[in-house]
Amino acid sequence: MCHDLALSLHHSMFIPGIERLATDEQKAEWLPLALNFKIIGTYAQTELGHGTNLLALETTATFDPTADEFVMNTPKITSMKWWPGGLGKSSTHAIVLAQLVLRGKNHGMHPFIVQLRSLEDHTPMPGITVGDIGPKLALQNIDNGFLMMNNVRIPRTNMLMRNAKVSRDGHFSSSGSSKANYATMILIRVKILSWASSLLVQGATTSIRYSAVRRQSQLKPGGEEMQILSYQSQQYKLFPALAAAFAYHFVTRTMTAVYEKAYEEIIGGNNRLLAELHSQSSCLKALLSEETCVFLETQRRSMGGHGYMLMAGGGAYLLGAMTLPTVEGENTVLYQQTARYLMKQVANALSGQQLQGSSSYLAADPEYVCPIQEVNDCRNTRILLDIYRNRAYGIVTGTARKLHADMTSGMEQHVAWNNNMIRLVRAGKVHSQYYAVECFVEGVE
Amino acid sequence: MCHDLALSLHHSMFIPGIERLATDEQKAEWLPLALNFKIIGTYAQTELGHGTNLLALETTATFDPTADEFVMNTPKITSMKWWPGGLGKSSTHAIVLAQLVLRGKNHGMHPFIVQLRSLEDHTPMPGITVGDIGPKLALQNIDNGFLMMNNVRIPRTNMLMRNAKVSRDGHFSSSGSSKANYATMILIRVKILSWASSLLVQGATTSIRYSAVRRQSQLKPGGEEMQILSYQSQQYKLFPALAAAFAYHFVTRTMTAVYEKAYEEIIGGNNRLLAELHSQSSCLKALLSEETCVFLETQRRSMGGHGYMLMAGGGAYLLGAMTLPTVEGENTVLYQQTARYLMKQVANALSGQQLQGSSSYLAADPEYVCPIQEVNDCRNTRILLDIYRNRAYGIVTGTARKLHADMTSGMEQHVAWNNNMIRLVRAGKVHSQYYAVECFVEGVE
Repeated sequence: MCHDLALSLHHSMFIPGIERLATDEQKAEWLPLALNFKIIGTYAQTELGHGTNLLALETTATFDPTADEFVMNTPKITSMKWWPGGLGKSSTHAIVLAQLVLRGKNHGMHPFIVQLRSLEDHTPMPGITVGDIGPKLALQNIDNGFLMMNNVRIPRTNMLMRNAKVSRDGHFSSSGSSKANYATMILIRVKILSWASSLLVQGATTSIRYSAVRRQSQLKPGGEEMQILSYQSQQYKLFPALAAAFAYHFVTRTMTAVYEKAYEEIIGGNNRLLAELHSQSSCLKALLSEETCVFLETQRRSMGGHGYMLMAGGGAYLLGAMTLPTVEGENTVLYQQTARYLMKQVANALSGQQLQGSSSYLAADPEYVCPIQEVNDCRNTRILLDIYRNRAYGIVTGTARKLHADMTSGMEQHVAWNNNMIRLVRAGKVHSQYYAVECFVEGVE
Repeated sequence: MCHDLALSLHHSMFIPGIERLATDEQKAEWLPLALNFKIIGTYAQTELGHGTNLLALETTATFDPTADEFVMNTPKITSMKWWPGGLGKSSTHAIVLAQLVLRGKNHGMHPFIVQLRSLEDHTPMPGITVGDIGPKLALQNIDNGFLMMNNVRIPRTNMLMRNAKVSRDGHFSSSGSSKANYATMILIRVKILSWASSLLVQGATTSIRYSAVRRQSQLKPGGEEMQILSYQSQQYKLFPALAAAFAYHFVTRTMTAVYEKAYEEIIGGNNRLLAELHSQSSCLKALLSEETCVFLETQRRSMGGHGYMLMAGGGAYLLGAMTLPTVEGENTVLYQQTARYLMKQVANALSGQQLQGSSSYLAADPEYVCPIQEVNDCRNTRILLDIYRNRAYGIVTGTARKLHADMTSGMEQHVAWNNNMIRLVRAGKVHSQYYAVECFVEGVE
């Protein structure tokens, strides 16, 4: 998992951030410094008070036309940047996301390069208060930090201007290709699929090997102690996770291909696949991150007390995986983003539109009759896939009907959404499960 | 949680161990030293190779009549003592559980006081190899350790002889009151109920308070950001855990009273309640420890990314609680111990015996008809309790029938047990859930 490395944000966010967000001129200035470690960077977006609701971030970059500078401020306690890896002790620079203010008018969130610490003696620059946020459940090797800025001045040209510009005279212009930034956020969710998948593979290997070596107790009095893998209960703990590890491998492979195809279109200006990509990456990130945690904990316990030692391996995977359900979109929020897309698709289908992609099954009632006649049918993956599809169809369309009925009966939309939130989260989840099983079935066939 | 304290085993196991296992003469020798911290002790039972299967522990105490000493050995790598808290760096002495060998004959597990380190300079005593087992998921403040012994000699009188004796001439005698030791093991499981309960109360308080203070996003465009506790999904995460915290409080209170009554009888020589006590403490320890971990993790995530910081509180409770499903009896094993008792009770009922205690509901088919007629009936706790009882009856007796049918059809008993292990674990679990709900309903009424 990339999170295992200190300074990982220099490589995973700071350098790629410059590559994606900077003009060619800015790249020529900053990339050589970063690539040669003359400067160490991080990416500061989340604040103490806001993570999920990005639009409400409070850090400001106010243009001062007299000095041709931006004045950076974190006006309240809740505005301080909180969590960026490498910020606590290591970084000299950060890409800071801030509300751009021009002549009193807010032009939305934009990225700015801010120097945090002296390149001579590493002390904080004037107006900068920076430090480590303190101990976490694990990953202590990453110095997650906080950052407060009090009238910190940076040159106007430190705004990364590939997608939006502020001219010398304070004029704002946007190239409008902000969907490419959006696609980058989605990329991180797709990467989380591969991290979850890889952690689960490691956990499965460790716990199954342990269970083949460890012997404990005997069921037949006087007999030899049994390999614990021979106990039915141990197999029940370990084999579903092993199957899931394969499923997640195929999910990751499929979604990576879907992403690459969509990204190529998006940078070409065609956003046809964006909504589908956003929906699928949201619910699958939520599903794989939450289930991986459950499986890794089951695997850890399957090693008895030894699973609590870090040297056993499984516990360390688990503590790393436990970051995944809340980073890069909190899972409950992500399932709802998928649900919002699915509700629209159900409405589109009702209005006669042809549905494309992962939600096309919502177009028609499968009029499902369970085809299982004998035990062996339960091993037929196509039959299992049908069952998952039927379940998703029933729950997603049922949720849409309930939401529609509530609003028809006079409930305000936001009240109806909240009153049906458990259903909506479940709709996003069963949809993701159907898709994951589909990737699995197609992968193993 | 008592585990938070370094040296906790000195207080929770070493001193109580002397009090329960030593003769009056031995108490007079050791207790003043321990109570005045002239010596620091721990309790060494689990070995690298054996935790669950205590009968197979490999450490030996061989009597040497010439010297009037026991010779202590951990003959194999798997025999080394592993896990005792305070052993790694702090303890000078340990109560070591070892197989007593007299003239080549094994007389079973008995407790011996072994000096580990010099009282002058804290270096290991001759023949002792001792150290820290290394980093764990948490609780690094406790120096869990390992211990190897190579022909370590201790006086014969260091065997704690309240329940069994070895005389000067090597004669073994047992007072037969070993059930009192057994009851002490059960006491720790009852204590785990209160630890789990207390951790869950803390987790519920922290996460619900956070959710009342934290505001994020709005469902109504342009509205104020909502307290996250107002989201239906957040309530769904937090309120079941709050209810469970009350339920566990009542379970703990009930089981503590049951234990005290039974223990009084047991030390008086009456073991009538022992099997029931063992069964109930086993499945309830498993249930509360496993569910507490699930609830604490849900609570941690309900605080978003902040839940991953130790200062948020919830994560630290979780990491502590994660020891509970595998300590003092691994949960899957414990559910089966309850299941074994329940299978016997079903057989007893079939043979016409009157059933006592928690399993008396197994005596007669409740011929259950779900009495729910309207929504409000779902809030009737007596109806809910009936549903839990009926579920437990169906699953426990169904498991007994299946096990009996398999054996009647010629399957060997140990094969039948393994083939039905998932059912048996489930039987132990649903029985414990019924009992927990019963404690809850009676507690709140």
